[in-house]
Amino acid sequence: MSTNQQSPVSSPLRVAVDIMGGDHAPDAILKGCVAALADLRPGDKLVFVGRGPVIRESLEERGIDYRTDPRIEIVDAEQVVEMGDPAKLVRVKTDSSITRAHQLGSRRAAAQRCDVVLSAGNTAACVMAATLFMGRLDHVMRPGIAVTVPAFHGPLILIDAGANPDPKPEHLWQYGVMADVMARQVLGIKSPRVGLMNIGSEEAKGTDVIKQTRDLLKATPGLNYIGYVEGRDFFEGVADVVVTDGLVGNTLLKAAEGMAKSLFKAIAAELMEYDPGLVTQFEPVVKRIYAKNDYHEHGGAPLLGIDGACIIAHGSSEARTIRAAIRNSMNFVRMGVNSEIERRLGELEALNIPEQVRLAGEQSAEGVQV
Amino acid sequence: MSTNQQSPVSSPLRVAVDIMGGDHAPDAILKGCVAALADLRPGDKLVFVGRGPVIRESLEERGIDYRTDPRIEIVDAEQVVEMGDPAKLVRVKTDSSITRAHQLGSRRAAAQRCDVVLSAGNTAACVMAATLFMGRLDHVMRPGIAVTVPAFHGPLILIDAGANPDPKPEHLWQYGVMADVMARQVLGIKSPRVGLMNIGSEEAKGTDVIKQTRDLLKATPGLNYIGYVEGRDFFEGVADVVVTDGLVGNTLLKAAEGMAKSLFKAIAAELMEYDPGLVTQFEPVVKRIYAKNDYHEHGGAPLLGIDGACIIAHGSSEARTIRAAIRNSMNFVRMGVNSEIERRLGELEALNIPEQVRLAGEQSAEGVQV
Repeated sequence: MSTNQQSPVSSPLRVAVDIMGGDHAPDAILKGCVAALADLRPGDKLVFVGRGPVIRESLEERGIDYRTDPRIEIVDAEQVVEMGDPAKLVRVKTDSSITRAHQLGSRRAAAQRCDVVLSAGNTAACVMAATLFMGRLDHVMRPGIAVTVPAFHGPLILIDAGANPDPKPEHLWQYGVMADVMARQVLGIKSPRVGLMNIGSEEAKGTDVIKQTRDLLKATPGLNYIGYVEGRDFFEGVADVVVTDGLVGNTLLKAAEGMAKSLFKAIAAELMEYDPGLVTQFEPVVKRIYAKNDYHEHGGAPLLGIDGACIIAHGSSEARTIRAAIRNSMNFVRMGVNSEIERRLGELEALNIPEQVRLAGEQSAEGVQV
Repeated sequence: MSTNQQSPVSSPLRVAVDIMGGDHAPDAILKGCVAALADLRPGDKLVFVGRGPVIRESLEERGIDYRTDPRIEIVDAEQVVEMGDPAKLVRVKTDSSITRAHQLGSRRAAAQRCDVVLSAGNTAACVMAATLFMGRLDHVMRPGIAVTVPAFHGPLILIDAGANPDPKPEHLWQYGVMADVMARQVLGIKSPRVGLMNIGSEEAKGTDVIKQTRDLLKATPGLNYIGYVEGRDFFEGVADVVVTDGLVGNTLLKAAEGMAKSLFKAIAAELMEYDPGLVTQFEPVVKRIYAKNDYHEHGGAPLLGIDGACIIAHGSSEARTIRAAIRNSMNFVRMGVNSEIERRLGELEALNIPEQVRLAGEQSAEGVQV
């Protein structure tokens, strides 16, 4: 299915938000949506998807007249796919907010179609609902979650953060190509350095999947593949795009988050013990570091490869995370990432890179043994 | 091959150290070895493996009479397996320090046999050399690197940190069993909580390899399996042993190290900008946190499952890291970890857990469909 989007996109956008998903749902999500109203351009709409009475009561309490406000639509969904539910429940709980929201992201929704579907709920359920109801872009084999990580040297994109724990080399290769497009279009990087996560930087290391992915990335014209990156490089600014499987990507991001949290706790505890007076002096410094590296500000990771924008927000999203995610997701659509992904993957499909790599491998195997 | 070790071990130990391996080799390694002489018990010996002239000159400079000191032996090895070399070079560079050191760890070395073989060099080469020359313990399918991580809630053991990037479920299962033994014998934890790293805590998540590993760990009597752990749990003290594949384990550890480093840099930069006077006030606090969580003090990760003690030290080991690694590795041997691993795996082999799990799976598949 071709998107035929103009790039960049300038028409008004419809943004569906799953009000029921997330650790602090529905309150934090509703509050974030209300704050996001101020960021909308003329004609843009927020579509609140979830339990109607909860949504209506909350909007009334905030003094918002949802009946007349042209920026607001409400779509009732009685059920909730809980955080611990199996993903396949999106087929069973047909009146859940995740199911309804992603159906709104489908071309079948016609005039009701939303350009963005945002949820801070069950990630696996969102991935399944997006794949089922919204479908994939042309040429895409599997979608992958692309997280923009606010590292200290500047943002980088990690793909995949957990959609696909057991990818094939071709999936990882496409992740690299898609995130390269996103880094160009959204982060404005001219020739993004694309690295492949591995156990070490030497060519001989890693699994067969990693080595085959390396060969595909290396053989891709117009892609600035810089080789393997290790965990220690991740926060050192050596790459703009880091490709890895969903298990490694997910673990890395969550461990880094846990590590930072623990470290700040340890610092606070040490300061208290050493000199409680220092705690108050140190506080503004911590706040500034948080502000610069805050995932709440970089909220909303697109599931790249989906026909539309399925945006996954952190489970522990607060109101400001949701507001930022709505802003970032609209920017993602406006920068025309999807049409460029289709163009690029189509161009590469014509070159048949996997076949080229296979033939090159056979030739070198037939070559003279030294 | 059975070790027939007494447990715990009280006889004098012979410790072979690869003098040429590591980012700061040979100087830091030599300095660490010299410092470690003070920690030896009567009869213990340090065997310096590497370029003879370099070792002899360095010991002389430090005023150590290696010719008469009964604690010191020198084994000449002219070659070096470099950090970037393919692991298989341990077969080609037969006069390399890694090859010679691990040959000293073999039972074939007879009276020359070393109880510990320690290297801060090429990890993959050490894994290959240990497997080739020292061999596996009875019942062990694949060895795995067990790193003791000095987390803020107390130490925990991560296995595997990079020996086996593409393990089978049975390998991961044995990693859990072996690290459980190590947590009991070395960390003194009575019933270690054993977790399996996954993308989420829900049972339905993860790859087939992870799910099969879970079934094996669950079915293991006497093992306190607590379920899946996520990256965010890692530094939160929820488990004493965390089992994962070598790619995830390696990436997690290196990323956490990189993250901590970047964070301290960011704190220093913010302090400088905000109030340079605070930098000096904050310095002792940082030093105390470093001291408590310092991997240099927890240096030396055993390659569990090897017949003997192959101890892998951090590539960036300093002298104090090496000294600590020597101390920790002697403790590892003295606590009789290997004989307990063989006993435990033998006991479990008699129960044929993989077959039990397979049968239980078939029965439940045949069960009534609800």
